[in-house]
Parts: sequence; structure tokens; C-alpha cells
Amino acid sequence: MSEKNKEILTVGICGLGTVGGGTLSLLEQNAALITVRAGCPIRVAHVATRTPKPHLCGQVAQTSLDPLAITADPEVDVVVETMGGFDVAFEVIKRSISNGKHVVTANKALIAERGNELFALASANEVTLAFESAVGGGIPIIKALREGLAANDIEWLAGIINGTGNFILSEMSAKQSGFSEVLQQAQELGYAEADPTFDVEGIDAAHKLTIMSAIAFGIPLQFERTYTEGISGISPADISFAEELGYRIKHLGIARKTARGVEMRVHPTLVSNSRLLANVNGVGNAVMVQGNFVGSTLYSGPGAGAEATASAVVADLIDLARDRMAGVTNPVRPALGTTQADSSLDVLPIEQIEVGYYLKIPVLDKLGVMAKLSAVLQERGISIEAIIQKESENSETLPVVILTRVVREYELNAALDELAGLDEVTGPVTRIRIEPFDGEA
Amino acid sequence: MSEKNKEILTVGICGLGTVGGGTLSLLEQNAALITVRAGCPIRVAHVATRTPKPHLCGQVAQTSLDPLAITADPEVDVVVETMGGFDVAFEVIKRSISNGKHVVTANKALIAERGNELFALASANEVTLAFESAVGGGIPIIKALREGLAANDIEWLAGIINGTGNFILSEMSAKQSGFSEVLQQAQELGYAEADPTFDVEGIDAAHKLTIMSAIAFGIPLQFERTYTEGISGISPADISFAEELGYRIKHLGIARKTARGVEMRVHPTLVSNSRLLANVNGVGNAVMVQGNFVGSTLYSGPGAGAEATASAVVADLIDLARDRMAGVTNPVRPALGTTQADSSLDVLPIEQIEVGYYLKIPVLDKLGVMAKLSAVLQERGISIEAIIQKESENSETLPVVILTRVVREYELNAALDELAGLDEVTGPVTRIRIEPFDGEA
Repeated sequence: MSEKNKEILTVGICGLGTVGGGTLSLLEQNAALITVRAGCPIRVAHVATRTPKPHLCGQVAQTSLDPLAITADPEVDVVVETMGGFDVAFEVIKRSISNGKHVVTANKALIAERGNELFALASANEVTLAFESAVGGGIPIIKALREGLAANDIEWLAGIINGTGNFILSEMSAKQSGFSEVLQQAQELGYAEADPTFDVEGIDAAHKLTIMSAIAFGIPLQFERTYTEGISGISPADISFAEELGYRIKHLGIARKTARGVEMRVHPTLVSNSRLLANVNGVGNAVMVQGNFVGSTLYSGPGAGAEATASAVVADLIDLARDRMAGVTNPVRPALGTTQADSSLDVLPIEQIEVGYYLKIPVLDKLGVMAKLSAVLQERGISIEAIIQKESENSETLPVVILTRVVREYELNAALDELAGLDEVTGPVTRIRIEPFDGEA
Repeated sequence: MSEKNKEILTVGICGLGTVGGGTLSLLEQNAALITVRAGCPIRVAHVATRTPKPHLCGQVAQTSLDPLAITADPEVDVVVETMGGFDVAFEVIKRSISNGKHVVTANKALIAERGNELFALASANEVTLAFESAVGGGIPIIKALREGLAANDIEWLAGIINGTGNFILSEMSAKQSGFSEVLQQAQELGYAEADPTFDVEGIDAAHKLTIMSAIAFGIPLQFERTYTEGISGISPADISFAEELGYRIKHLGIARKTARGVEMRVHPTLVSNSRLLANVNGVGNAVMVQGNFVGSTLYSGPGAGAEATASAVVADLIDLARDRMAGVTNPVRPALGTTQADSSLDVLPIEQIEVGYYLKIPVLDKLGVMAKLSAVLQERGISIEAIIQKESENSETLPVVILTRVVREYELNAALDELAGLDEVTGPVTRIRIEPFDGEA
């Protein structure tokens, strides 16, 4: 780089899809203010795209079909990886780092599943691997966790971190519609993929939760140990029972540090409707973070989309430009993929968590059923917080809804097994966890 | 500093009140994790306090009565100013900067009213003047504006930035109580001062808005041009009429960039109850920011308190420690107190803003009144969005509530003057601005 102008940060963008295209547009449209704020211009010198997009690339010096060409381009200081996927993206990031280039990526799946290796490599090569856009779209939640809240011992965090899932639950709630119907509508609106598994089964949320947990607790990225449960089992009846009890059902990613280990879990959750988090609707994202000094703070905004995600990608680029102008080659940021925390911080199996539960139990409409259900729970020390028992309408079975107080999950599982064995219980029990949280917001 | 250990950041704290004491406690309690995250230990070497507090200062090497002693202490890298007030605090910051020390301050009044001079001095001396704790308590909103959203042209921001005022309005709403009654309760709970002017008349909020506007728009700090209106004129009737129309009344600080200039204003505001901002209750703070790429994001949390504010002070210290460990002496951050924006960005007088209005007009209960009111508004091109007219109960006057569409404020003022002259209008008209916002959240 000795021949290069140090007063410019030059960028190569691999992949001109939604995020890559948005990044290119943003850098062009807001160029003047970015130059002022970054301390130098940020110029796109090279893009790689499978399908040429001349309307986007007018001012770009070089265009390649092969993204690997960018990783070796001596003109490029920072490689922006916005291709997505695993193998090629991994290779692009690895080669870029090895060639001494900083990398900015929006690839949450790759960071969550193979990040430990990539962060170790970045550290060894003294370059930055930045990923603000990987979690929460345009919301600067990664910066909040690593910098804004850096003085705090993070006790827990909980977030709506998949816009598709939140849209579906919001619509089910607003229109009392079923999951399949709303999913189809979301697909028509472009909010859900043709194969929605990744979003509605919580895999995307688990990627993001894995990343946030690693930062918050200083533990390695452990996607494979994040518990994941989707929203396809939620019915309009569950939503309205929850509403009647003062709750909304949200698909949350939750990470909590306990004396027994770290909880990392994605699942439908009852959230008190007095909480801001319960009032985040549509495709919006929001993350609550509880620190031991700051208490509870919340960050919300658009979790996806070309423009919002580009905002986060370019924020990373501005940080890198500022580092460069200040003469920093190796900024101090908490490493990811290496344990900073007490090494005893292991991930708890889901059976070991302690929360409250919403249970919807289909039972025969006859005398003495409630007493039997209560007895099963009571025997295992499970206290009942609230019950809804409705009149049955021309049916021999009716649902009993019970909210339990906090109990360890394996105790609840044992009680559910026993309930399933009762003659009066006519079908599978619906179980949704209730997050009490602590602290305001 | 040549003799000093470069692997420690040493701090002097001026003032051991709520925030200073909280900062000392935080640095002690979270010392281990701060060292890991900052890249080096952060040690308090010197404190200045008028009343000795040995229980807090056990590990501090030196204690002074005179805060100016700290500004000259060669052991001290960073001076934390947590005394508050103007003259001595200004002198402490000025001398610290002149002596080449970085400064971290929570003093929003001083930054808003005399910051231009201090930032220029810091820039000339190549030191950092940090102030995350000056706005929004523990919420990292300054970092979000300067770094997380740095890629965006900020179009507007709007915040609940005074916890006392928000507590009062929330309680008035929840209990249908009057302003004076709730204020007294807030004073008993320690949420309001004996002289509450600073909070309830919006001066504190105007300080914070001034600071956020300067960052968002790249304009000088202009506290004297920030329009300020308090909440003491809000009645329980206004709150319930607003509720009936789908709004909550919040005391907002609003900054908006328009083609005609910048609006900076603090006043009670009707906010649609579907917005998150409308659902922030109690002493909490929240700021919405609209960027041209990110769209609308929201940041909420505790806006005051020893521990939350200390979280922000120490975040600034950790940034400084990271700069130091990375060898940065003069980090690139958007300067405050110098114009980066188009110099034509002048502050608009309040008469020039364009919003909707809630009008509560006390009128005689007789035929034809509504027609007369409508005619006055219509003549000036003011469209009516909604009307509430209640039956009068054993009284000859009754309130008519009108929501107008967006109109320029001087047109509204002229219409109000005319309304005041009507025989049918029996008393002063209550006028509350309605913020439509644009974008989600």
C-alpha cells in the first residue's frame, strides 16, 4: 500500500445483491457527509458481481465476475462481503484477511457458525473483521454491546431479531388469523422466503443470538448449542388467551448469565404487554439489554432491508476510515471467538433453564378435571399463577389455560409427561415459555 | 507523562456526588471486566470532594478539596467532571484541556451553553472532550448519533429526554390526576427537585436537544435558539381527550432539518399511541432518530440515576483507554461546536414550523358555535382532522376539541387571535402540537 493515497479508504464490494447494492448507493448518495464524518473519502474501487449492474457501478473503477479477484487487489483496503452463503464467502473473507485487508460482512450465518476461526485469523493478521450489519439490520446494537455498554457486566439480553417472524405474529394477533394464512401473505409481500424455514423456525434468530451472546458474555461463538424453537405451532387461540392474561407472544432470542451457566435460546415467549418489547410490531427488530449498572436499555428499528442494512455496513467502514486517519492499525475491541469470561461459563441445556410457562391443555369437559391437573403440578412444586377455563361450546373437550410460576424446565417436562397420561387430557399440551425479565423498559 | 506507566489509564474525578460516586463504584466493582474490554486497567488516582467520603475513596491515592488540584496532577490522564454547575466546572475543564488532559463530563448545561468554546479548545489541544452521560443517562445515544448512524443524513430526531417530566405526564395519565398533585408526589419520591422549573419547564430537555442537534446536523451548539415550553399547562382533561383521539401527550425534544432551516423545540406533543415512543412511561428516556438510509431507530432506557449515568461516563473512559492502547492521540470524531453542515442551515423561529395542532376551545353552549369556529380556521386554510364536542353538564360553557392538519404556526397563531375575539369563546385556548413523524417505530 506504499504507493497508495493514505487519505482515502478504498473499498471492494463482493456481491451486489440487496445489501451490496444498497451499500454502493449509500456511499454515492451520502458521499459528502461521509467524507466529513469519516475524516477522508470512502471510495469503491472494485466490485464483484455475477450479473453486471452498470446502473449501479458507474463510478467504480473495476468490476469482476470473480469475488476472489478483489481479495488480491492491492488498491483495496477493505473488502465488503455481501454475497451471503458459506463456502465462497468464507474463502473471500479468509483470503482478504490473509492479504492484510480489513473485512466488513453482513453474513450472520457465517459469523455465527465459522466466526471463531475467522476472528482468530483477523487477530493474527492485525486486521478488523466488522459485522454491525449482521445483527438487527440498521440498529447499531453490536456497537452498543461492545462500546456503549462496555462498562457493564451484561446480565441478560432479549430480542426480536427476525422481522419475518415478528411480522407473522403481529399479523396473527391483529387479524386473529392462522399461521399458514399469514405466512402466505408474508410471502406475497416479500417478507418471507418461498422456503420460510430459516426465519420461522428460528435459525436466523439463533445466528444473531449466538453473535450477541459471544460479545455480551465474552464466550466463544456456539451456534450449535443455541436452543431453537419456531413459531409454526402458535395458534390464534394462544394469542388471544395470552392477550386476556396481559401478554403478547413474541419470538425472542434470549441470552442470560446465571450462576449455573449461560442460557442461549430462541423460542416463542409470552411478554407482558406493558413492556416496550411487546409493542414492537411488524418487521421491526428490537433488543433489550440488561447491564449491572445501566439497568435495562432497548434498541429498536428496521431489522432488514437494503438501505437499513447498508447503513450498518457503512458505519463499519466509517469506523475503519477513522481508525486509519488516526493512525490506528490494530484497534482494541473485545475479541470475538476467544474466551474473556470465566471459563466455567458453560452453556446450559434447555432442560436446566428456569422460567414460567403458559400451558394450554385440551381436556374432557367434566367434573374434577381441574383438581386432577392441579394435583399433578402441585406434586412437582409447580405453582399456578393464573387459570383460564372457558365454557365449552358444543364440544366435549375444552382448553384449560394455566400460567405457572418460575420452575426448572425438566420439572415442567416431567409434569407434562404425567399430564399426557391422564384420561381426561385429550391431546397434546401447548407450552410457551414466559419471560419475567427483571428491571424496567 | 514520560515517567508514567502507559499501560494504565489514570483518572481524576472532580465531584463525588451522585454521578461521581457512581463512577467510582462502577470502576471498582467491574474492574476486572473493564480491564479486559479496555485493554488496560482504568485506575482512579485522584478525587476532589468538598465532603470527604472515605467509604468511597479507600483505593484512591489522593484526595483534594480543590478540584483545580486535579487539573494539574501529572499522574492524571483523564479528568472526569461530575461537579455540575457553571463557573468552577468550566474552569476545571478548561484547565484540564490546556494541560493536555482528556475530559469526560456529564454536565449537559455547560456543554449546551458553553460547549462551542470548550470543543474548540479541546481540538486545538488535541484532546478529547467526551460527554456520553450528558444526554439520555445510560443510553448510548451520543455514540449512536456520532458513530452507529454516521452513514446517514439525519432528517429528524425526537426524544423523551427528561425523566421527571415523563414521570409526571405518565402519572397524570395513569391516575387522571392534576399536574400539581403529581408534581408533589414526584418531589416526595425524589424524582423532582424542590424547585422543579429546570425539569418541568423544559430547560434540561433543551440542553440535551441542543447537544443532539449539533451532532446530528453538524451545526454549532445554539441553546439560546432552542424553543422551550413546559408541561405545567397540561390538564387531565387534555390527556383524556388526546387518549380518546388515539394519542398520548409526551414532553418531547424535537429537532428537524427542513429545506427552510433547522427546527429545535421542546414542548408537550401529541404522539400516536401506536408508536413505541408513546409507550415509554415513568422516569424512562427514549430517543427516536430518522436517518435517510436507516429509517427510524429508537433508543430507550434509564435517563438518570447514579448507576446508569456512571455506565455512560465509564463507556467514555473505556473509549479513551482503547484509543490509548491503540496509540491514538487524536481520534477522528465529528467535531462539535464547528459547522460541518451547509452554513445556510439556520435555526427556524417557532412561528415557522409546520405541525398539526390539538386545540381545546372553551365555548358557550349554543347553536352555531361550531360553524363559527370552523369558518375562522377555514379562512386561513387550516383543515380539521377531528373534532370532539361533548354534551355540557350543568354548565353554560363546554370544551370543543379540534385536531388540525399540518399548518405553519404563524397561520395557527393568527387564527387563535381571531378565535379569542369571538363572543362565543369564553376563555384561553389550549394548544398542543401534534408530531406526525414519518417512517416507522
